[in-house]
Order: sequence, then structure tokens, then C-alpha cells
Amino acid sequence: MALSAFFNHPEAAVNAYYALHSLQHRGQEAAGILVGRTVTNGHGPCRKFAIHKNNGLVLEVFKDPVLLTHTLAGDVAIAHNRYSTTGASGKLENIQPFFMNYREGNFGLAHNGNLTNTRVLREELKDLGTIFQTTTDSELILHLIARSGAKDQIGQVRDALRTVRGAYSLAMMSDTALIAARDPNGIRPLAIGRIKRADDEWAYMVASETCAFDIVGAEYIRDVQPNEIVIIDAHTITTGEIRSVSIVDDPPVPTHCIFEYIYFSRPDSKIFEENVDRVRRKLGKKLAHESPVQPEPGRKVTVINVPDSSNTATLGYASENQKMGNATKYQIGLIRSHYVGRTFIQPGQDNREMKVKVKFNTVKGVLKDRRVVVVDDSIVRGTTSQALVKLIRGAEPKEVHLRITSPPITHPCKYGMDFPSKGELIANQHGCDVKKIGEALGVDSLEYLSIDKLLESVPHVNSEGKPIGYCTACFTGNYPVPIDEIAERQVANDD
Amino acid sequence: MALSAFFNHPEAAVNAYYALHSLQHRGQEAAGILVGRTVTNGHGPCRKFAIHKNNGLVLEVFKDPVLLTHTLAGDVAIAHNRYSTTGASGKLENIQPFFMNYREGNFGLAHNGNLTNTRVLREELKDLGTIFQTTTDSELILHLIARSGAKDQIGQVRDALRTVRGAYSLAMMSDTALIAARDPNGIRPLAIGRIKRADDEWAYMVASETCAFDIVGAEYIRDVQPNEIVIIDAHTITTGEIRSVSIVDDPPVPTHCIFEYIYFSRPDSKIFEENVDRVRRKLGKKLAHESPVQPEPGRKVTVINVPDSSNTATLGYASENQKMGNATKYQIGLIRSHYVGRTFIQPGQDNREMKVKVKFNTVKGVLKDRRVVVVDDSIVRGTTSQALVKLIRGAEPKEVHLRITSPPITHPCKYGMDFPSKGELIANQHGCDVKKIGEALGVDSLEYLSIDKLLESVPHVNSEGKPIGYCTACFTGNYPVPIDEIAERQVANDD
Amino acid sequence: MALSAFFNHPEAAVNAYYALHSLQHRGQEAAGILVGRTVTNGHGPCRKFAIHKNNGLVLEVFKDPVLLTHTLAGDVAIAHNRYSTTGASGKLENIQPFFMNYREGNFGLAHNGNLTNTRVLREELKDLGTIFQTTTDSELILHLIARSGAKDQIGQVRDALRTVRGAYSLAMMSDTALIAARDPNGIRPLAIGRIKRADDEWAYMVASETCAFDIVGAEYIRDVQPNEIVIIDAHTITTGEIRSVSIVDDPPVPTHCIFEYIYFSRPDSKIFEENVDRVRRKLGKKLAHESPVQPEPGRKVTVINVPDSSNTATLGYASENQKMGNATKYQIGLIRSHYVGRTFIQPGQDNREMKVKVKFNTVKGVLKDRRVVVVDDSIVRGTTSQALVKLIRGAEPKEVHLRITSPPITHPCKYGMDFPSKGELIANQHGCDVKKIGEALGVDSLEYLSIDKLLESVPHVNSEGKPIGYCTACFTGNYPVPIDEIAERQVANDD
Amino acid sequence: MALSAFFNHPEAAVNAYYALHSLQHRGQEAAGILVGRTVTNGHGPCRKFAIHKNNGLVLEVFKDPVLLTHTLAGDVAIAHNRYSTTGASGKLENIQPFFMNYREGNFGLAHNGNLTNTRVLREELKDLGTIFQTTTDSELILHLIARSGAKDQIGQVRDALRTVRGAYSLAMMSDTALIAARDPNGIRPLAIGRIKRADDEWAYMVASETCAFDIVGAEYIRDVQPNEIVIIDAHTITTGEIRSVSIVDDPPVPTHCIFEYIYFSRPDSKIFEENVDRVRRKLGKKLAHESPVQPEPGRKVTVINVPDSSNTATLGYASENQKMGNATKYQIGLIRSHYVGRTFIQPGQDNREMKVKVKFNTVKGVLKDRRVVVVDDSIVRGTTSQALVKLIRGAEPKEVHLRITSPPITHPCKYGMDFPSKGELIANQHGCDVKKIGEALGVDSLEYLSIDKLLESVPHVNSEGKPIGYCTACFTGNYPVPIDEIAERQVANDD
Repeated sequence: MALSAFFNHPEAAVNAYYALHSLQHRGQEAAGILVGRTVTNGHGPCRKFAIHKNNGLVLEVFKDPVLLTHTLAGDVAIAHNRYSTTGASGKLENIQPFFMNYREGNFGLAHNGNLTNTRVLREELKDLGTIFQTTTDSELILHLIARSGAKDQIGQVRDALRTVRGAYSLAMMSDTALIAARDPNGIRPLAIGRIKRADDEWAYMVASETCAFDIVGAEYIRDVQPNEIVIIDAHTITTGEIRSVSIVDDPPVPTHCIFEYIYFSRPDSKIFEENVDRVRRKLGKKLAHESPVQPEPGRKVTVINVPDSSNTATLGYASENQKMGNATKYQIGLIRSHYVGRTFIQPGQDNREMKVKVKFNTVKGVLKDRRVVVVDDSIVRGTTSQALVKLIRGAEPKEVHLRITSPPITHPCKYGMDFPSKGELIANQHGCDVKKIGEALGVDSLEYLSIDKLLESVPHVNSEGKPIGYCTACFTGNYPVPIDEIAERQVANDD
Repeated sequence: MALSAFFNHPEAAVNAYYALHSLQHRGQEAAGILVGRTVTNGHGPCRKFAIHKNNGLVLEVFKDPVLLTHTLAGDVAIAHNRYSTTGASGKLENIQPFFMNYREGNFGLAHNGNLTNTRVLREELKDLGTIFQTTTDSELILHLIARSGAKDQIGQVRDALRTVRGAYSLAMMSDTALIAARDPNGIRPLAIGRIKRADDEWAYMVASETCAFDIVGAEYIRDVQPNEIVIIDAHTITTGEIRSVSIVDDPPVPTHCIFEYIYFSRPDSKIFEENVDRVRRKLGKKLAHESPVQPEPGRKVTVINVPDSSNTATLGYASENQKMGNATKYQIGLIRSHYVGRTFIQPGQDNREMKVKVKFNTVKGVLKDRRVVVVDDSIVRGTTSQALVKLIRGAEPKEVHLRITSPPITHPCKYGMDFPSKGELIANQHGCDVKKIGEALGVDSLEYLSIDKLLESVPHVNSEGKPIGYCTACFTGNYPVPIDEIAERQVANDD
Repeated sequence: MALSAFFNHPEAAVNAYYALHSLQHRGQEAAGILVGRTVTNGHGPCRKFAIHKNNGLVLEVFKDPVLLTHTLAGDVAIAHNRYSTTGASGKLENIQPFFMNYREGNFGLAHNGNLTNTRVLREELKDLGTIFQTTTDSELILHLIARSGAKDQIGQVRDALRTVRGAYSLAMMSDTALIAARDPNGIRPLAIGRIKRADDEWAYMVASETCAFDIVGAEYIRDVQPNEIVIIDAHTITTGEIRSVSIVDDPPVPTHCIFEYIYFSRPDSKIFEENVDRVRRKLGKKLAHESPVQPEPGRKVTVINVPDSSNTATLGYASENQKMGNATKYQIGLIRSHYVGRTFIQPGQDNREMKVKVKFNTVKGVLKDRRVVVVDDSIVRGTTSQALVKLIRGAEPKEVHLRITSPPITHPCKYGMDFPSKGELIANQHGCDVKKIGEALGVDSLEYLSIDKLLESVPHVNSEGKPIGYCTACFTGNYPVPIDEIAERQVANDD
Repeated sequence: MALSAFFNHPEAAVNAYYALHSLQHRGQEAAGILVGRTVTNGHGPCRKFAIHKNNGLVLEVFKDPVLLTHTLAGDVAIAHNRYSTTGASGKLENIQPFFMNYREGNFGLAHNGNLTNTRVLREELKDLGTIFQTTTDSELILHLIARSGAKDQIGQVRDALRTVRGAYSLAMMSDTALIAARDPNGIRPLAIGRIKRADDEWAYMVASETCAFDIVGAEYIRDVQPNEIVIIDAHTITTGEIRSVSIVDDPPVPTHCIFEYIYFSRPDSKIFEENVDRVRRKLGKKLAHESPVQPEPGRKVTVINVPDSSNTATLGYASENQKMGNATKYQIGLIRSHYVGRTFIQPGQDNREMKVKVKFNTVKGVLKDRRVVVVDDSIVRGTTSQALVKLIRGAEPKEVHLRITSPPITHPCKYGMDFPSKGELIANQHGCDVKKIGEALGVDSLEYLSIDKLLESVPHVNSEGKPIGYCTACFTGNYPVPIDEIAERQVANDD
């Protein structure tokens, strides 16, 4: 999932559209933009809300240009890309952003992450006469805000966030402000930027990744900090100051999702204050150090990437392997099609293989008769890797060695990453026996990066010199935030 | 607006689709079907809900056949046609049916009518921490049900309906039952029917008009009575008994919407226990009696209908005018196109006139040089009548006399009919001076039916011998249910 | 099929759109508009062509408003509604208008009717090296024009039309003129009109029926005569004169399609110089004269129409039946839905019955316990009549008498009407035994109009006092133009 | 443009769909598939044709899965991707494949390339009474085949191909055979492959590039030779023999389009019997040799690719630059979005820059303060390069050096590549002064590959040892096939 929000920009929706597009990799299932247009009526200034959301890629959902320029005209916007983490995908009512009208006025919310005490809270609220119109954990936050006894809106938001647990990066829009927040553990990323408008005034934005700043010409200011609620409003525009309050009083050491660095974020983004591509290059190097591949006599070993997810890490692997004395050649052995959309239909029988063939092809001259090292970022179910190895074998390499820049995934994510159940993870199917996994994939050798080397590749203090940690639950089963129940998000209405 | 619901039918959604189609005249803006599929899980039998709704005609919204046969597979369904009564039309979140998950489980609702104490209730609920995700009055009912302290669900529904005021015919779907209800005044219609299934078991249905029974082969049982909540559930299937509870303890004499007979219902429906076409024929006769048109010497007067809304009434008018000694010929002087859809685009400048031309054409041979009487059901803004008279004048009749089978509309409807504000009603623009209105429309004479004759045309006792009355507020300003405020439905979020 | 064309109108495509809409009843399968925009390039004035055509109703095919106002901007247009007369329906390349670039420049054509010597001509042309890109007979005319040795374009058109046989009403567009033509027998209609433009200049149009003139505000000038080619060009604009040449030298007495009067044309049109509704009323009267229905003692006989195809004829029948001493009441016993589009899906099993139910419903109070006479225009396969009778029986009339305002259809049309093969015509299935047909349809009595009375109902001299005749082949098998072969239109490419 | 064709495969259309998808880079404007289904009717076996084509990407045009599995069921298929080379883009009638019915039966054609004597031939044919229904040069070939006096179909095809001049790779489908051909100069590629079916029988295919073989699991047999017509029919299936005839008697030395190697073909294809990626690596090396970039003292020079068009060439450049003693680091400095479709809308003002931003982003850590070498394949108008350089400058590199793996483009292509007119080519705008071009693009230095080095990078004998040459007209103006006129394809109907 991804979110983005804009404040004080005359073309808020157009910017949100571009931002969502740049964050498309974080969620291809659905997209939505909620805008507020500041107007003055009899009771003083207020904000008219308009929303459009639907299943599909950003460019499909907003393909009617009238939407962005007319229907969604406004100066404030919050926007969301949905990534299916539950079976209830496709349900229109579950697409974000959400909005409500409550005691304080209108209010919108976009949520990236996954809460972990939803069921208990939901039951408690239902006992109090609350109705739920979606099956998402995000709706819960709205109810908690509306039910808070706090006098001001920020207090209400803080009350709500003190009640929920789990992972959340949030963008919220009230009648007067853009409010952003991040859970005390800071599991998902969220950054603040600003855009100089044509009239030299500043517009502000938040986004899941900084690549969204680049596409709209914004400059990065800082991250929303773990445990922080930031308020961007008229005061911010006048003074440049971004007000901020804490969520809990004694926050833990943050535990950022390390998988954001491994796979999920774009390499051109800065995440948790560090460039993603820098981490990926390190992951490749550490992996080569741990698990090099030696050349055959007289021939360099051929190292190839899986475009585009392992591009940078492969460069790191290749250079380090070379440095270790193994004659190494980085090659482009796989070509990725530019035309594979979400809606690609695949008539015909053998779907899994065809899915890979439609996306990738081999460069035969590069692979034939070679000792080939394929560097990839991770293995989840293993089905794609299997098909990919088969495709590569079709180009008749001498050997295929697979190197993965992360440890074996053995546990599902509870904080918003779309992993399958334990039983479907290939590592668990083979008792975490790397050799057996390699055999199942059809490679001559398989090596994963160790958890130690993984942790060596990422920063451990932030820009203020404070210590930071990482969530590695998918590799270790150590969940930093308690989980109340399993499959939480689907408590109602669903099949 | 229209609603329909089915219980214990293996193809509930298919039937709902046909029913909505037959009720399309009551709402062309949006349509939705919510189905429940009874399944058994670990906790016993429960009902899985699935919904599809969108802007458009029924045949557009459900044009993908997979929807009805797969997505919406189920044995219970509630369905709704939306008719824009507010400016917030087009908003997806406002399309019915609505559903919620609350303390008692899943619950769906379709509402026909308009509540009149919404604003106060909404404010009260908001003060208690309730959030509103739509701008409809119908959502309010859901909150009231969920907040009721009553122990059983029917008690909760009754609590809620005792709290709201105004016009409502409701179909509700819980995990175990289909619940239907009608406000104490019985303003909007709602009837109960049953269908014999192939296996000789009975399925039950409710619908706004009985024409929906005909299309699916159901037989009419009886009306949901004013002030009645009926429960159709497993008990009904087993015993044939439809349980019933009252809403308020001392209900008023019902005040049915008389405009349903004049215009809104289909002539092939039975409404408020009376055939609509029978009333319409009487309206025509009474009007001829009050305002006949004499022939010119030696030539019959030509009486024409405005297809198809005044077809039956025109027959009544023509026969009575003849009976009064005026040589009269009923003729088809206007042809209506079968191909005018909701989405008809009208490029070019003079839109109002073109709208009429695209829909109607004159039969010149019938009108030329004749004294023509045009019988129509009602005049609201007058713009369509104006254009129609101009069209008829193009066929060169000698004279055009307009006869309307209802009194002048002078007040907006507060109970769900989509009339404009007082100032836009043509009758008010001319101080209810019929002569001036006729001049504005361009006719040689104009006459309306009197309110007395109107009331003479409709039944005044029901099938049980009890007295019934009518809401004539649009003609008289006498609103039978108090109105708290104006423009009630649009309290939030809207532009 | 229907065609329409405009010359010298700045919004030619917008007008063509409205004209096609008013002619929609003549063809619901596909629609197309070809426009010419007069421009001046280096070589003098020429005409840029643009075209849009697709399967669907006019309002679907042209639903993007940019099409009419921008893509199809121009001052000349020819337009066509397609009505499937062959199995090759749905093929985009077969949708009209067609256009070609040939020796004389650009040329477009729209054709209403059916040629009867296609196969021989097509083989001859293929032997000369001609290629066919469609499976229509209309393409043949283009090839014949291009291959003509005549010096001027009108001569080329005449050469081509002297070569083909059968039924054709044509609108053609060259770089300088709008050319219209009608076959020597004048089987299909075609009329000429003119529109006064805002600047007082005249625009000209032709159309299959005069109802197309009404919708765009044109006045009827005259019919294109059988055997006539008319040329509307700059000369016409300057002088008001419409030049004209004959096709063959010794034309036969015209044989107009009598079925146009019975069913195909709109009642508000003038066809073959006579008002359609006038003929229909006569048909109803003659039928009552031949086959009256007597009332039961003390009760009027109830006469109902099948909306909207038999509306006018039923009025004629009812008044004549009354005049013959039978107490008769014209009633509205069937209601037709306004919302049945071409694309109506019909989930569920019993399709034929559902098709009728979705379109029609009975008014029970009018039919119950009555002797009912249903007046309809014609019976082709009988399946719709059967389902309709069953529907009417559901309203529990005492008796159902079916009266048809045309003779039994016993032969397929070779000139463009979409009738099925001989064996599928219900009349042939029962050896033209009217009693047996009535039994098959489930009525108490069935009567058809006799061929003699049919011919008595239509004019036999035209406005110039010349004799005219009618094609009655579908009732008699007397085909006025020789037929070379069967299933002519489908000579290639088709399944 | 691209084409593909299949013979003797039970799922010919499904395969064609995948093949077109893999060739999507050669034409994103429109796509079409024509299939033949072999059936037996009264006259013996014949082939039923069915076609579907439309504007859009392959996955859009064929998104309805019924198309491939039902509508286009058949065992023979020819398929085409259109790439707009003229202003008449978007016209449905111009989308390939084309088909005709002529003397010999049904016949379909797909054409890749551009003819150069179209105007003269078209005028000649028009004088003989031929009509043109498209504005393409490809239709001409159909007419020439139909008009040929040759007795057998292959003779007719040869006659036609002896008459036309220019570039053509063709796939043709008759009632009995798949026929493929390539012009005597062999300007565009075309290869033959075969697929082993599940029943061990062979199916045959042709395709513009061999990447289409990979996606459907076909093996490469050989190229269709320049000047060759090959016939794949029942004889081929029985014997494995592919019959072949020559077009002209004294063919020239082939002149393959060298731009296919530089940019147009996919790197995973074999073209003109050579792997594309191999040539591209050489181009990069030769360019480094001619125009190396030296590092700053103590820092490696950073070499980046423009993904994905210059990926392989950049590797070649980087390794050769290193080998020449310049400390070099290949880096991923630009990220390309996977979600930019053909239909991406770009609301907002500065379109050209936004187009680049939506497609590319920089990896700031890699570029900042570096001496950066950007390797790209070619520069046409220069507008994209300009925007790209601006984007890169935003990452604050110290210097930007642009290296192009081809010479300056100075002449338009007449053989099917979509280049603009001379005046729009940036090289011509600056008198081919490389320094000035570089200034216009905003780089610190710009160097092109020389024509000599370009020619050194490609093979000069074919697999049979025969000499082959190249068309370098876009760099040199030496057109190997005479050009009759300019803007040939647009002779009629167009705006």
C-alpha cells in the first residue's frame, strides 16, 4: 500500500495522481483520491470534499481527464494505492481513502499498514452500537476518533492512535488541516516534502516514498517520525512551522520493516532516511562475500539480474565476486517486457509458465554454455522462481546458481506485506533446508543472505543519532508488536 | 425510488434484476443489489453478503452477466433503484442498498421515501461519537438500529423506526430474515408476494409496485400495512405465516401519496390496494366532466395523449367528453421514440426543444386544422409542456387545449418525490392564475383537475374497511408529517 | 435499413445523428456516418472525408460527443442504420457507409435495400481482377461505378445502376455533390427535404422516412422518384434546382414495398407520398369489416393494441367494429417498458417468455373476464405472438381473439426485409390453415386481413397522377424483380 | 510494424496473440489477427476467415478472452502490430491484416515496411477502374495480385511483388497456404520457425523477430531470404519441405536496415542471422574506443544507461572505457517506471518534461557530484534527450557527457521507420555540428558513433557466405531503393 497527500496546492488532485503513479509498485489493485476544496459559506470557511476511487491501476482509475481537473478540483488531497492483503479484494467499499462526517465536521483518512488488535476493538465498538460499513481495520480508526472525548481534533486522533496497535502510516484531512502520523514502531515509511508553487508560496506533501517527491518536483524535508503526529495547516503556510505531537509517552526503539529495503521500495527512494539503492548494493556485496561463485577455468562467471527488482543488488554482487578473485562478468541475460499490465489475459493452459514468459525472455547468446549466477531479492512461494529457472535453462547454460539477497522467508507479515500463509512459503515446505529448496527450484546451487549480513547492510542510528532497529519477523518470527489474532482484517461480510 | 427484495429463492439476484427493471420508471439514476448466500461455517449457519451497485440504468449496471449468476449468487436479495432527490446524485457511496456489520451480525437496508427529522437526529448521533459515511437519511436508520438497547433485532428495528419520522418503505436483510416495513402514514407503497419455486416450495418477495410481481411470476399476497414491520424468515417458509409487529402504538389514519396514482406508478400496478389504471381512467373522466371541450361545428374534437404517461387518463377524458355531448375522437397525435436512453447526448444548441423532439414527434395528418385537446398528467416546471406545445403547433392544429389530470403543483414534496423548489414550479410563477399559466405554455385554454375531483377518484376505505386518507401536500401545502427543516438530506460532504 | 444524407449544412454530422436516431426502428444493429469537409488545397477545392461506424444503437455508436463536433466536422454527410439481413452481422467491415478513392476522387455510398443479381456480377468482376473487401452487395455498386467507361460521374453512377437489379435507395457523396437514387421499381422509400439555415441559406437532405425531416426541422420537398438519380450540388445551392436523370429508359410501373405501410415505417412518416398512420387506420377498419368480433350479451368487447406497433390500426379496428353494431371498447391492456435496449441481458432459463415479459405487462383489471380482441400488424415466426398470448391469458380474459392487419406471410423478402426462410414462417408450418395457426398461438380465433382489402387501403396513383403498384411478394410469392439466386449477400468470407 | 503468422496450429490465434505481445515494441498503435479455420463444405475443404482488429495495445485490443478462443478459432493466422508512420493513424480501415475475396478465393495479408512506388501504381490502377478502400500502400499489393494474369496463386504473388518497389516483409494467407515474402533488398527482417505440437506434428510460424518464437516455444529454422517467397502448406506438413520461389531474377546485394540493430529490435532477438544484443555490445565498445571519457583524479567515471533501450550497449561502453585505462563504474542512475502505458494521461501544463518524469527517475546517490556518462542509442528530434538531461541535472552531477551508439540522423526513413521530416531532426537544426547539438541538449560533451565503426559492428556475410550490406540512409542519405515521391502513403481520404 502507498499513500500521498497534498496541502495548499491549487492542483492537489493532479499532483496526487502523479504521486500515486510513482508509488504504483506498492499497490496495483485499486486507487483513490479524496480532495478538499476550501470554500466560504455562511458559517465561515469550510472544505467541500469530493472523492473518486476504483479497482485498477492509477492510470485506469483516473483515465477520464475530467476527473482530475474538474470533479476533483481542490487544494488539499489525500490519495491511496491499494495492495491486496486480504481476500476481500475487489470490494469497492474497502478502497481507500475513507471519509466520514462527524461531530467536528468532515474527515478523510488514508492508511498504509496493518493493525494487530482490530478484532477486540471492533467487538468493543460494536457492543457500544457502532456500525461497520467496510471490512477494513482502517475504518476502526475513524470510529475511535469520533468517539474520543478529547476536546480538539488532534487530541481525538491521538486518543485513537493510542488505542490501536500495529503498523500504520496515515494521512488525514480535516476541514482545516492535513494530519500525518506514524505508529510508535515506525514500521512503514512516511516522509514530508514541500513544493514551491508558481507564486513562490509553499505547498506541502507527505508520501510513502520520496520517489513521489521527485515526480512532482517537491523537496524532501524530513520523515514523519515514529510515534509522531504532524499537523500541516494555515499556521504552517504562514510560518513554515510544522507542529507535532507524540502518540504514546514512552515509545519503543523503532523497528522499521527491513523488507522495504530488500524489495518493496523503489531503488530511487530514500526510506527511513537512507537511499534504497545504497542498501541494495550492499546486500549484493554481502551476499557475494558470503556465497561467491567461482568461475570455470578460463571463463568468467556470468552474473545476471532479474529485471528490475534485483538490478542494483546484482551490480553489487558482481563487483564483490570479482573483487574476491572470481573472474566475473555482469550481463543482461533476461529481458523484461514493458507491456505487461495488470489485466494481461493469458488464454491457454499452462498459466504459471506463460506468466513468466510473457514478462521475461532470455538473451541466449549471453547464457548458453555459461556458469550463470542469477541474483534475486527474495523467494516467497517459489513458483515464479521455478518458472524463471526453467526459462533460463531453455537458453542452455552450463549451470544455474541462484543467490538471494535476503534470508529465507518463514513467517507471514502481520504489518501489511502481502505474504501467504506459513504453509505456502517454499522455505517451510522444505524445512528450511536450503539444499532441498534449491533442488525444488531446479538450480545447481542456492544461497540466501544471512540475517546478520542483512542487518549489517542497514543503518542503526538515525539522523538525530538515536538508535533504530528493524522488524525481521518474516525471517525470524520475532514480531515486535503483539498480534491479537490471525487474519484480522476479515471479520465481516466476506467470502 | 423503488425497492424489491426476495427470500428463499435460489436465484434471488436474477429475480431482483428483473424486478428492478420493471420498476425502472421509479429511478433511473443508480441501481444496486445486495445478496445473502446462506452457508454453514464453524459457528452454524450464517449469511455471506455480496453487493454490486453503480450509477446507471439497471441494464447498464448489471450488464456483465457474471454479476448475477456468480458474484451475486445467493438466496436472499434486497435491491434498489435510485432516483435523484438531491444534488448529491452521482456519489457512489450514496447508492443503496446499504449494509453494515454490527453487534447482531450483518445487516442490509433499502429505503424508498424521505425522512423529515434527519438533521436533529444526525446531530444527536454525532454528539454521541457516531460517524456518517454517506449523506443520506437512510444511513441514519442503520445507526439507530445498532444503538438500540432492545434485545432482539426486530425490537431494534422498531426502536429505530419509532425515532425517525417521514416517509419510508423499507426492505432489510439480516443474517436470518427479510424484514419489511412501512411508515405509520403509509406514504410510499410496498407489497408482499410469493413465487412458487420449481420444487413447489414458496419464495417470498416485497416490491414497491405489483408490476414487479408480474415480471417474476409472483402472486400478490397483500400490502405491507402502514405502521407495520413484517418478518419473513425460516418460520415463514415452514408455516406460511408472515409475522408482524406494529411500529407506533397509536398510528394516524394513513395518508398515501396521491401522486403515485397520478403519475409515478405504472398503470399495470396495483398500489394501495387499487389498480392504478382504474384511478387514471377516473381522473380523465372527472376532468372531462369539469372541463370539457366542445367541438367546432361539424367536426369532432381531437383528443390526444402524451405517450405513455397520460394514455389511460386520455381514454377516460375522451369517452366522458363524448358522453357529455361533445363529438370527440381519440387519436394518436404524438409518437414516442423507443430509443431514448438516459445517456442520450444532445449536441447542438437548443437543448430543451431538442430533448422533446428526440422523444416525441407529431402525426401531422391527425392534428392539422383540428381543435386538439392534449391530456397530460401534471405540470411541474412547465418547460417540457412548453416545448411540447410548440412541437404540436408545428403540425398546424387550429387550437390547442391542454387538460391536466391533477391540480396545480404549488409545494415541493418532502417525502421523496423529486420536485423542484417552490419558485421553480410554474404554478407559483404565475400566482396560480391558470389563465396566465396557459398563456405561458402557449395553449388556447388550460384546465386542471380540482382537488375535490381528484379525491373522488381514489378509494377511501381499505380492504379491511378501515378509512384511508391521502397526502396532497404538493397541491395544498398540508404536510401530514411534520417537517423539521428544509433540504434535509444534504447535511454533509456535498457541493 | 435506413439512410440519411445532408448537403451544405455546417453541422452535417449532428443532423445526421438526429436523423439516424429517428430512423433507429429501421435498423438497430449498427450505425455509421461519413462526412465530407470542403477545404481548399493547392489543386482547388476538395473534400476531406472522415468516417465513424460501429455495431450498436446510434446513441451508443456516437456516445463520445467529440465524434460529432470534431472528428466528423463537415458540411456534407451520408449516414446509415444497419439492420441485419444476413448472418454476417457484427462484421465491422460490412457496416455502411462505404467509401472509396477512385479515378474521379473520393466517393461514399449508403444503401438501403437488397440487390438480386449480385452473384453473377461479382463473379464477372472477380474474373476481371477485382477484389472484394466486404461481403455486401453494396460494395458491388462502387466497383461498377469505378469501372464504368462513362466520362462524367453521373454517367458512371447510371451505368452502375443499369447493371444491378433489385431494391436500392442510395445516398452517395462525391467530391462535389450529394447524389441520391432509387431503383426503377421504387421498392424502398427515399424523400428529399431542405432546412433553412440560420443565415437563410438552404441545406438539403434525403432520408428513408420523413420523420427524419421533423427531428431536424426540415421541410419535405418530394420523393426521389423510382428510376431517378438526383444531384444536389453547388448548382442546387445557387439556383434551388435539383438536377435529375433517369436510370433505365423504359421503367416499369413502380412496385412499392407494402410492408413499409403495415409495419416497418413509423406512423408519423409520409411514405410513397402517403401518411403511414392514415393507411394503418384504414387497415384496421378494413380488418374489422372483414372480421368483426361480436360482444357478449350486455358487455362490450374489449379491443387492445400491441404497443406501439399496432396503436393506430387498433383505433381503426375498434371504431369500425363499433360502427358495425358491435359494442366495443378500446382499452390499453398491454404496457410496454421504455427501458428495453438492444443489449438487455436475460439471465435465467426460459428466454423467449422472459423476452416478452421484460417488454410487456398486462393491465389485469382491463382484461379479466373479458372477450378480448388483440390487434397486431403481422405474424412472422409466431414465437413472440405465442408468448404474448400466454402473457395475456395470465390476466384471465374470457376469450382472446387475434386480428392481424395483413395477410399471412408465406414467402421471404428478397428486397431487404429481414424475414426468415420459408420453413420458419408460421403460416407455412400450418399449410396456411388459419384455424391451425390460431390453435398453435393459443387464441380462440385468429383472422388475417385479405390481400384485396390490404390493397384497397393504399394509394394507386401518385401525386402526378401516374399509376403505382405494390410488391406483395411476402404474401403472394409474386416477386416483381427477378431473383438470380438465394442467400445472395453471403458469397464470401462468412461462417 | 511487426507481423507474425501461424500454420497448422489448433490455437493459431492464441499463439498469434502472444507473438504480437512479444513484438509490441515494434508498434503500439493498433493490432489485428486474421484467422482461417479449415472446414469442409459441399465443394471440398475451404477456409473460413474471421478477423478482429482495433486501435490500442495487443492486450487492449484482445482483452475479451472470447475473441481468441471462440471468435478467432482456427488453425491458420496472420497478425500485425501497427506503428504509425503516417498522419492517417487511428483510422480503423487502415489497420492490418487486410483481406480480400477475389477470383482465387479468400486471401489475407500483413505487411511490414514501406513501398516506394505507390503513387504511380495507384494512379495506373485507378485508371483501370480499381477502387481503394484504404490509404495504405499494402492494399496495392492485393490489387496487383488479383489483376495478375498468372495462372497459379504463387505466380500472382510474384507478379505483384515484381511490380512494387521498396521495403516489405509479408505474411499472406490463402485458402490453402501460408505465404511469406521479403523484398529483394531484405530491408526488414522476417524469420521462419516451427513448433512441436502436443501430438508431435509440426506447426509453422513466421515472425518479424525471433523473440516471438521464444514466447510460443518455437524453434528458429531460418530467415525468409531477401527476394524469396516461401510457401507453407499441406505439402510442408507432410514432407517438412518449405517450397520457395524467387521474386526478381537478378537481385541486388541485400541492404538490411541497420537501425534494427541500433534501436528497433529487441536485444533478445536474432535479426538478419545475428544476435541483437551482441551487436549492441559492440556498438558500445566501438563508441568507447572512439569517444572515451576520462575519470576525474581519484574518482571513477560513472557510466549509466537509459533503461531499457541502451542497457547492453552501456555495458559495452563501460567495459571498454575501463579497458582503455579510464577508471569506470557502470551504475544504475535512471529508474524506469513499469506502469507507463500508451494511454497515460498527463494533465497539467508542462507536458514534455512530465512525459519524461512519468517514465524515468534518477537515483540521486549515484549521480550527485559525479562525472556522469549517459549512453543512449540515438537522437531523433532531441526533445526527449533534452528533458532527460534536465532530469539528470536535477540530481546534481558534476558533469553530464552524452554518448550515442549511432551517427547523427540526418535523413528520414522511406522504408518504414517513423522518423520526422528533415527539418525536425535535431542534427539538421544545427548543421550537423555536434558541439552545437550538445549545447542544445545541455550536456558537457556529446559524441556520436562514426558510420565506419557502426558498420564494423555488424556482419558482412551471411550464413551461406554471401555478402550482405546495410541501408544507412538515415545517416547518409544513400537510399538503396529508388523513391518515386515523398509522403507516399497518404494519397487519399486523409486530413
